[in-house]
Amino acid sequence: VDAMGGDHGPIVTVPAAITSLKNHPQLAVVLFGDFDKISAELAKYPPFPKDRLRIEHAPEAVLMDEHPKQALRFKKKSSMRLAINALKDEQVGACVSAGNTGALMATARFVLKTIQGIDRPAILSAFPTKTGVARVLDLGANVDCTTEQLFQFGVMGSVLATAMDGIVAPRVGLLNIGEEEIKGNKQVKDAAVKLNRNPYINYIGYVEGSDIYSGKADVIVCDGFVGNIALKASEGMAKMIGYYIRKAFSETWYAKLGAFFSYRALKKIGSTLDPRRYNGASLLGLKGIVIKSHGSADKFAFATAIEQALKEIELNIPQRIAERVELIMSEENKYV
Amino acid sequence: VDAMGGDHGPIVTVPAAITSLKNHPQLAVVLFGDFDKISAELAKYPPFPKDRLRIEHAPEAVLMDEHPKQALRFKKKSSMRLAINALKDEQVGACVSAGNTGALMATARFVLKTIQGIDRPAILSAFPTKTGVARVLDLGANVDCTTEQLFQFGVMGSVLATAMDGIVAPRVGLLNIGEEEIKGNKQVKDAAVKLNRNPYINYIGYVEGSDIYSGKADVIVCDGFVGNIALKASEGMAKMIGYYIRKAFSETWYAKLGAFFSYRALKKIGSTLDPRRYNGASLLGLKGIVIKSHGSADKFAFATAIEQALKEIELNIPQRIAERVELIMSEENKYV
Repeated sequence: VDAMGGDHGPIVTVPAAITSLKNHPQLAVVLFGDFDKISAELAKYPPFPKDRLRIEHAPEAVLMDEHPKQALRFKKKSSMRLAINALKDEQVGACVSAGNTGALMATARFVLKTIQGIDRPAILSAFPTKTGVARVLDLGANVDCTTEQLFQFGVMGSVLATAMDGIVAPRVGLLNIGEEEIKGNKQVKDAAVKLNRNPYINYIGYVEGSDIYSGKADVIVCDGFVGNIALKASEGMAKMIGYYIRKAFSETWYAKLGAFFSYRALKKIGSTLDPRRYNGASLLGLKGIVIKSHGSADKFAFATAIEQALKEIELNIPQRIAERVELIMSEENKYV
Repeated sequence: VDAMGGDHGPIVTVPAAITSLKNHPQLAVVLFGDFDKISAELAKYPPFPKDRLRIEHAPEAVLMDEHPKQALRFKKKSSMRLAINALKDEQVGACVSAGNTGALMATARFVLKTIQGIDRPAILSAFPTKTGVARVLDLGANVDCTTEQLFQFGVMGSVLATAMDGIVAPRVGLLNIGEEEIKGNKQVKDAAVKLNRNPYINYIGYVEGSDIYSGKADVIVCDGFVGNIALKASEGMAKMIGYYIRKAFSETWYAKLGAFFSYRALKKIGSTLDPRRYNGASLLGLKGIVIKSHGSADKFAFATAIEQALKEIELNIPQRIAERVELIMSEENKYV
């Protein structure tokens, strides 16, 4: 755990680690960061044995607005860098950070390298749908994607949906717009051909923005620019609805009474759609498990990200991706 | 009015026209489409004088899933084509259609042509925000946009925000992603430079997907692929929230009681955010006013689209855009 990352640092990462350790007896955590600050936070809780929880001092921290290349070049003793180094050296099984996304991506790529057959890593996250979850990638690691990259995203997303949700043949959709003449750009059209002809991918065709939440697909593939904006736009919509709900329920005594009786129902909706339950995006395609938590995560949300890392360790995700890519690429070579 | 367009045709477009005529004494409507079908629908309402409401028979209609180029080439007597021809010939002041978006765009471009200085038309729609509305363009007319096009979208959006909402210097934001290293593609970065240096545009910088609904900008510029997906993703999110709200409020008697007392509050939120209130996207940049209604619009929503057309006629939007483009291009020439 990069204990210094995120908007809050140790006051969130330390209690989240404690919670995760309590809930998962098979888990052990190394906290990377400022020894004194982490110790001060740890002192508030009953101690864990050293083999389950220890601190690795890091004299530096990557700032949230620091340029990724700067961080990569000049912050070689940062909590983020040391955590990823430890992953590379197999001292830990996964790295979790709520820090600067660009720096995390750049550092992870530089230190860990990508899996054979994967051009660039992608950011994947699970989105709630009417029926379960959809896994969407890329969410911002790659602005312009080649056909090849989009195809690889489909492969990696499928592996995750199978491993995490037990779906034998996950339905893979390619994000596109609905208008016929102007449908998609060249990369998207070519990726559709590649996804469609490969027998190891259950490609269901184009899906629209609204299908992210409709439950039509288990995996949704798009470039990072589009994915990031779709994610943030719908977060913005959800926040605005929340704002209007709170406003309407506090305006009249009648509505306040309604709010009182609706409390449990509203709470249940809140809990189903709570973004904290979906915190922890996977940086997929690396030779190692790296989980990115939302920068503003609280301790509940950050614990979810730690648990996501634990799951990926137990499921051995990078190994599964490597095997699948090898299989699929041997199939692909038939077409070349 | 293209009376045959949309999922429902005359059973929606005719009553919507009647409503609009009642509410706006200065309005006159020509209904293009199948004479018999439209007459049958009109017979249900008290007659309007001929100078306010008449039918122009069109023997064909463009299908919702027809290829735009096919429609353009082979449906020269369609209700959509005849309505746009009438606009070209200045027999009407604007054209409203709920039909096939691609066909409407292709036909309008072919018949009307674009304004001098505008490369391609864009689709603009108003989105509700916490404080009012944001006008977003393009929403799907152009998949890959050049720097020049994005710049022109900023100009056109500003004209609309000034004319429609009376904002003297509308805040223009360019949609981008938040991660530093990977921020935007080349077109977006170059468009930022152009928007920023022009003194006639109040450019406020990059905005993220969540800012569509935050009220941070009056005009938000993006390419049609991203805009379409952002729009549909947030619609999908809103639908999913609605689904969970209905589900939660119907599950227990306690929640049902809550729903009873919350009825007015929930109705008010529904009314503020009702997509029907925002129906009627402008096809901007053409030598003529063309309004695209949602294909699934009901009569309330379609009437909103007709009223949008009326406003644009009264505000003389194409003329305003032409003047503004001329002014701004003379400024731009200083930098070349």
